[in-house]
Amino acid sequence: MKIKIGIVGYGNIGKGVVKAVEASSDMEVVAVFTRRDPGNLVINNGKTIVYTIDDACKMIDDIDVMLLCGGSATDLPEQGPHFAGMFNIVDSYDNHAKIPEYMASIDAVAKNKTAIISTGWDPGMFSVMRALFESIIPDGMTYTFYGRGVSQGHSNAIRKVKGVKNAVQYTVPIESAVNEVRNGATHVMEPRQRMMRECYVVAEDGADICEIENTIKTMPHYFADYDTTVTFISEQELKDDHSAMPHGGMVLRSGHTGKQRTEKNNHVMEFSLKLESNPEFTASIMVAYARAAYHMAKEGIFGAKTVFDVPLAYLSEKDRNTLIKEFL
Amino acid sequence: MKIKIGIVGYGNIGKGVVKAVEASSDMEVVAVFTRRDPGNLVINNGKTIVYTIDDACKMIDDIDVMLLCGGSATDLPEQGPHFAGMFNIVDSYDNHAKIPEYMASIDAVAKNKTAIISTGWDPGMFSVMRALFESIIPDGMTYTFYGRGVSQGHSNAIRKVKGVKNAVQYTVPIESAVNEVRNGATHVMEPRQRMMRECYVVAEDGADICEIENTIKTMPHYFADYDTTVTFISEQELKDDHSAMPHGGMVLRSGHTGKQRTEKNNHVMEFSLKLESNPEFTASIMVAYARAAYHMAKEGIFGAKTVFDVPLAYLSEKDRNTLIKEFL
Repeated sequence: MKIKIGIVGYGNIGKGVVKAVEASSDMEVVAVFTRRDPGNLVINNGKTIVYTIDDACKMIDDIDVMLLCGGSATDLPEQGPHFAGMFNIVDSYDNHAKIPEYMASIDAVAKNKTAIISTGWDPGMFSVMRALFESIIPDGMTYTFYGRGVSQGHSNAIRKVKGVKNAVQYTVPIESAVNEVRNGATHVMEPRQRMMRECYVVAEDGADICEIENTIKTMPHYFADYDTTVTFISEQELKDDHSAMPHGGMVLRSGHTGKQRTEKNNHVMEFSLKLESNPEFTASIMVAYARAAYHMAKEGIFGAKTVFDVPLAYLSEKDRNTLIKEFL
Repeated sequence: MKIKIGIVGYGNIGKGVVKAVEASSDMEVVAVFTRRDPGNLVINNGKTIVYTIDDACKMIDDIDVMLLCGGSATDLPEQGPHFAGMFNIVDSYDNHAKIPEYMASIDAVAKNKTAIISTGWDPGMFSVMRALFESIIPDGMTYTFYGRGVSQGHSNAIRKVKGVKNAVQYTVPIESAVNEVRNGATHVMEPRQRMMRECYVVAEDGADICEIENTIKTMPHYFADYDTTVTFISEQELKDDHSAMPHGGMVLRSGHTGKQRTEKNNHVMEFSLKLESNPEFTASIMVAYARAAYHMAKEGIFGAKTVFDVPLAYLSEKDRNTLIKEFL
């Protein structure tokens, strides 16, 4: 009997979930729920049935885990608490500052259901590494670097600039800063010292490109605090060279054993990702945590959970003894 | 009230535990147990009391978690089952092939105690990464690289060669192989393709150094399957340049989403360690898992456990809400 997966929202992450489930022999996608007209949607595995989102409540017995694939700004704050009362859920809620509030809203309804929130790679795997690294070497400094990859938020910010037709923004880690940490640095690094921003911009005909460049580079929060480059390209170049959704990043911690001692030994831990498809990788993580949600629910471990609460053995398709034999 | 730690065996790892506990404000080392004469042992924090190992059974109420810091060949197979009946324990048992058997011997006695076995970095953190990476991207290949670092086993093997006075062996990952994986390789790599071995040897006066070099390079299992270099140096050079115990290594997985599809996207996950002191880092991991053992025992989660069974939240000195706020 396979674990029956439902998907709410069929954007890039929803499509990625369909792909990721294909790689697991213990799961199947049994339904996709959409706010669009179900008749107009064909699922990329060519077989899963599409329903309107309002029909989900009729399918409580047909779905083991519901994967919420909507956005964190408006979809999840509404859908999370709605679905967590009916289904075991997994999401990738990524508004870091509001996670405690979001979690409380889920926990309040997930009385007999398991809800694993904020999975994905950040929050998610990067959170795992930050917590693990600090637990092992308490005396040190943790650094997160993003990129090289497309930031949708920054790309959207550029698209709103007057005279901009289209744009893609890459976040790029500064290699010399990464190497400083690899060599044992433990000092504070501002965002500007860790990452730079590359913008590829398609201007509207007759737009003032000097003004566009200046507006981008001085945009508070998004670009003003970073070294930013702006390159104007054609719509065709944007399509040919910048349509993919690669991303990646690194969590590093440098620190030492031997607090308050003269003989200090330095240790560097590094976790890095290089992803050809950001949404597909996020979806793959959600699917692994869906397996965990299924098993935890079977054991009666209910409520809102995070990556910090899930033992690794629950994520794997392999049973515990096989994990111990093959991976320990 | 601090978590009271006991240490069995005061070698390099035991000394590392004392250092690592100093970095945690919620723990203290209350006793070191030794098979040597306790009167001859001074603990590097200058205060912990030393007892003979036979006195441990009288101190069941004085110690929350006992860290077994002996070797896997002869110490732990005897000490593990002995202490796991009396105390919550953590060890770094690293004889991979015999872990299931060792684990069963611990589980049989840890009826009201929590025993977390085979912590450290491999087995341990590397095991965590291997299991996590495969769970997320099932369709791919995982590679473990060791080094650059000193292998005690290989150094000892050289020291047994006729005419050898002393020796240190470094395991060195082959950078071109690492880069192949970083660029998406998913083919099988034999050990020889992943690592090479550098030997620094002090010969006895008048020894046949050609014969020594040949004996090392053709030694089955240890060196014959690797590209091996042998460099003869003086005892003083060995002392000056090769007394430290650095180590490190990498776990990489390359794989893709989209099984049986044409549009496949590749993803590379990498975890790496660069350690100035192998035993101190191993000890630091054991201390984090000691915290987990303490909390799991409080919750009645008894028996033999591994890194696959421990939720991350148990490893940290920070409480769950703080972890969520700071790291998620």
